[in-house]
Amino acid sequence: MARITLDITMSLDGFVAGPEPSMEDPLGKRGEELHEWVFGLATWRSAHGLEGGETGPDADLVAEHAAAYGAVVMGRRMFSGGAGPWESDGNAGGWWGDDPPFHVPVFVLTNHARDSLKLKGGTTFHFVTDGIEAALDRAVEAAGDRDVHVAGGADVVQQTLNAGRFDELTIHLAPVLLGAGTRLFDGIDARATRLEPVPMPASPAVTHLRYRVVK
Amino acid sequence: MARITLDITMSLDGFVAGPEPSMEDPLGKRGEELHEWVFGLATWRSAHGLEGGETGPDADLVAEHAAAYGAVVMGRRMFSGGAGPWESDGNAGGWWGDDPPFHVPVFVLTNHARDSLKLKGGTTFHFVTDGIEAALDRAVEAAGDRDVHVAGGADVVQQTLNAGRFDELTIHLAPVLLGAGTRLFDGIDARATRLEPVPMPASPAVTHLRYRVVK
Repeated sequence: MARITLDITMSLDGFVAGPEPSMEDPLGKRGEELHEWVFGLATWRSAHGLEGGETGPDADLVAEHAAAYGAVVMGRRMFSGGAGPWESDGNAGGWWGDDPPFHVPVFVLTNHARDSLKLKGGTTFHFVTDGIEAALDRAVEAAGDRDVHVAGGADVVQQTLNAGRFDELTIHLAPVLLGAGTRLFDGIDARATRLEPVPMPASPAVTHLRYRVVK
Repeated sequence: MARITLDITMSLDGFVAGPEPSMEDPLGKRGEELHEWVFGLATWRSAHGLEGGETGPDADLVAEHAAAYGAVVMGRRMFSGGAGPWESDGNAGGWWGDDPPFHVPVFVLTNHARDSLKLKGGTTFHFVTDGIEAALDRAVEAAGDRDVHVAGGADVVQQTLNAGRFDELTIHLAPVLLGAGTRLFDGIDARATRLEPVPMPASPAVTHLRYRVVK
């Protein structure tokens, strides 16, 4: 049975995106600073068609994560930045062009039904209109014996957490204070979740946190 | 010149106290869970007049911190849980009885002037009515070549951060989701602070984070 996991980068003050996200700046103001630890890594670069980059524990973690999941769940806004009917969404094909870096089925939570979108490299986006539990169930089925990666945004993470569906949380804590933006943990039903820390390698660039959810 | 430092325990979701703090429950609901990592440590126990306890990196960090500071700054609510005139504060002597565990001068930020309160073991509480900068300045003078420990609450930490006065932040990240309470980082002027991670020992109970503030 597939495990449901999180792998996300958060600022020290708890934000996963900066304020005022836009089409030009989907992660909000200064949101890119969260991910500085990852852009130079060989594994991230090769996944995005670039050569070279650093190896080491950070790169190994990124590679391990990419190999671990067999399906992805994400919110509509993470997929396209838009809202409302797809006909009026100028980014209805998603952020990633015709060969997205997922290579597995991706289940996009939305209020607006739509046919699946099959792109290159094994990525097919399926649009789920009947809520988080249905999206997770379909992803679990699609993932086989690999993990379901809940990619974001924060509201989808919160829904998964409050539904008690996570098996493991991995958070990369960036040494950054954003001051404002989208908080990862907001409106959490804390009673739903008991955590057990899992040892992680040290990194000079970011603090890797991992917790098993005790069920 | 004394460095100004923080040493505080925060939940994974960013809270330093749970909701609904009261005289019976000064850390708010489930707030005690934040500090579970520390209660069993030999160094914490001996500082509170108890015998035995665990040794190791966690205990060493607590001992190192206790030895490092020469003065403390805290808010009125952290001192007594009260507000308003001292005559109507039923806890005007503070939480810690006649031999508090600080053993150095403690500067309490308040709107209500009051004579200093000298207790046993070297702890004297001074009451500062002219704001955070004045409290920090007096603490720096009192600390000599040791550190000034900004103890809390969150509002005092935020004022110190926004004034650009911190030299180092140590945060013990507890594997707990509180869901509500007092956030450590709220109303932060993020532009004021650039952080550089400092390597810390691993612990199975809590994640020790330390950042140098780049000035």
